[in-house]
Amino acid sequence: MNVTVHGTTRHYRTVTFDAARNAVTLIEQRLLPHQFKIVSLPDYRATAAAIRQMIVRGAGAIGATAAYGLAQGARSFRGGSLAQFSDRVESVFQTLKSARPTAVDPVNAMLAVRQAMRSGATIEEQQSLALAAAEHFANEDVQHCRDIGRHGVKLIRQNARVLTHCNAGWLAFVDIGTATAPLYAAQEAGRKFHVFCDETRPRCQGATLTAWELAQQKISHQIIADNAAGHLMQRGEIDLVIVGSDRTLGRTGEVANKIGTYTTAVLARRHGVPFYVAIPLSTIDWNLRSGFDIPIEEREGSEVLGAWGATRSSTIDRKARGGELVYVRVANPSSGARNPGFDVTPVELITGIITPFGIFKPEELWENRGRLGYGPERADRAKGAAKQSLR
Amino acid sequence: MNVTVHGTTRHYRTVTFDAARNAVTLIEQRLLPHQFKIVSLPDYRATAAAIRQMIVRGAGAIGATAAYGLAQGARSFRGGSLAQFSDRVESVFQTLKSARPTAVDPVNAMLAVRQAMRSGATIEEQQSLALAAAEHFANEDVQHCRDIGRHGVKLIRQNARVLTHCNAGWLAFVDIGTATAPLYAAQEAGRKFHVFCDETRPRCQGATLTAWELAQQKISHQIIADNAAGHLMQRGEIDLVIVGSDRTLGRTGEVANKIGTYTTAVLARRHGVPFYVAIPLSTIDWNLRSGFDIPIEEREGSEVLGAWGATRSSTIDRKARGGELVYVRVANPSSGARNPGFDVTPVELITGIITPFGIFKPEELWENRGRLGYGPERADRAKGAAKQSLR
Repeated sequence: MNVTVHGTTRHYRTVTFDAARNAVTLIEQRLLPHQFKIVSLPDYRATAAAIRQMIVRGAGAIGATAAYGLAQGARSFRGGSLAQFSDRVESVFQTLKSARPTAVDPVNAMLAVRQAMRSGATIEEQQSLALAAAEHFANEDVQHCRDIGRHGVKLIRQNARVLTHCNAGWLAFVDIGTATAPLYAAQEAGRKFHVFCDETRPRCQGATLTAWELAQQKISHQIIADNAAGHLMQRGEIDLVIVGSDRTLGRTGEVANKIGTYTTAVLARRHGVPFYVAIPLSTIDWNLRSGFDIPIEEREGSEVLGAWGATRSSTIDRKARGGELVYVRVANPSSGARNPGFDVTPVELITGIITPFGIFKPEELWENRGRLGYGPERADRAKGAAKQSLR
Repeated sequence: MNVTVHGTTRHYRTVTFDAARNAVTLIEQRLLPHQFKIVSLPDYRATAAAIRQMIVRGAGAIGATAAYGLAQGARSFRGGSLAQFSDRVESVFQTLKSARPTAVDPVNAMLAVRQAMRSGATIEEQQSLALAAAEHFANEDVQHCRDIGRHGVKLIRQNARVLTHCNAGWLAFVDIGTATAPLYAAQEAGRKFHVFCDETRPRCQGATLTAWELAQQKISHQIIADNAAGHLMQRGEIDLVIVGSDRTLGRTGEVANKIGTYTTAVLARRHGVPFYVAIPLSTIDWNLRSGFDIPIEEREGSEVLGAWGATRSSTIDRKARGGELVYVRVANPSSGARNPGFDVTPVELITGIITPFGIFKPEELWENRGRLGYGPERADRAKGAAKQSLR
């Protein structure tokens, strides 16, 4: 999407590949929203480190980064036999996989790249097939997000007031995003609307990432404390909720997403506000049979007990000032916290699930599993997905 | 309640009066939970400044502070006629009133002190009646909170898990508090229980003040992001909710309280968790006929866009290190916020209202108005109450 730096607006993807320099190029997301910076990763080890250090996060974005990283590692191989080359690719695969061991998207993306490489007879052919497959993965991610926008745009009526929770925006994917896709499509269609971003404690991805995205796209928006959503709905100030999902059960339609999503859905139901979930296919879990079986990660208490922020007002247009983010302890020093990272929203609270292949009622996912990428190996791979976080 | 400083535990009230030095003594609440400090205010102007600067906050606490401040100003009068004395008292009254112009408790408290002074024939008699009336006001505040505890204690069953929102604890009153009173009474009765404190964004009074209070009283507790309450209820981990109230409509039973209270009530109803509101009589508004007529204060966006905290871990047992609290900007620098300070919880979501005179269903307040301090002048005075905040 668009980013304005020093008064100049241009289009960026979250993840790209510089073939000439064999480098993966990422937006350094840890500095957002206070600083916009592009980092160039010269080898696959640096790419793995970037995934591990959360320079890049979000399902689609780390999938594409791993795919490019695998191509990068394969392309840097010089001399040697085809067998040695295969060993090298396997080693790159393991290095990238271990950078975020619980995430399924990097593994799925890299398996697709490896599959494509098999039709190459020579090292050079395989190297070039690897890059083509990685590019294909990234482009498909973008296309799927664009399709979500195409289907979801009809939900955004003129002057709609939309509530979002957390960030399932373009920063979590290669471009466009899922929960944000209908918004960007509505803007493109010339529609006027306003977005309320739940700040999304404790990690505040709504206040930081979603608000930054919307500001860059010049979409009218305001940040609210998560506590304010109920009041705004009570006063009739919210027409629609759209959120993303970390894991959606293909068999039942239940949605695991950032903590607080369930609360938002309960409020929406009470006030007759439609509640939609936008999902990429990669987060559908075809395996589990009940939302109560989704393991809910208990995260570090420090996230709840304090906050990360900038000590002075800064904008991305100012000169880079890295390392200025500080952690402040807000809470009573001798108190501890509970910090469940996700919650599960039951089917009866979900108006619809927006996928690249249309909007479905949650209970319709299973009967449409053929179109939605159902496969036994997908079911197996999805097992670790609950711990994967759309930060 | 008890506070442990340098390993020594002793009992403190939020507000006391040092008659020998004619000084009002306060807990410096702006430094909590990171630092515990008592300030002594040598004259009524300093007392007014302390109210204005929010060294003291909370309905009962600022009421008692103003009552003591009026006695303090009256007692510092030397020489002159009774008429000059009366002018002085009027001037002190106005100074203290203007320190928090929208609050009703200071005015009600000072009117009671002035009323008591009328029966004194001399300046000296009136001075001593003023102090006696201020002490009476403070003691009655404590007694009312104790009575709330006496009635509410039966709600806290053995091993109960109680959710609170914001702070209506002893720091907001002279001692004991309202929403906390049943907890302290249950502890005194030897009952075991656990408290979840909503951090209560954006000002985080739950994470700071309530957690500090409970830690000082050695009550088992954990802080949670407001977003986590729904998940915990869904998993059956919360048995009871108790909150305070900034304004309760005596005619309808509707409750205005810190933003997020309504959301908590909606969640509690969905999960069959009893939802109680503990209130002092001073916050009953006998005037308004609908919760929708309660003006909801829109507060500064900076509260939502960032957080105040300590940059290093600190405990109140360490040496005073004032001025260490810093504000960090969490949110995207170019984004704004909506920040409604309060919300209104409708009657059908409230299990009971705990008052000093018993627990009532919300719709029973009006028929019990005789016992609950109904009076036309109270109705008038309550008009400004919505802007008064239990921080």
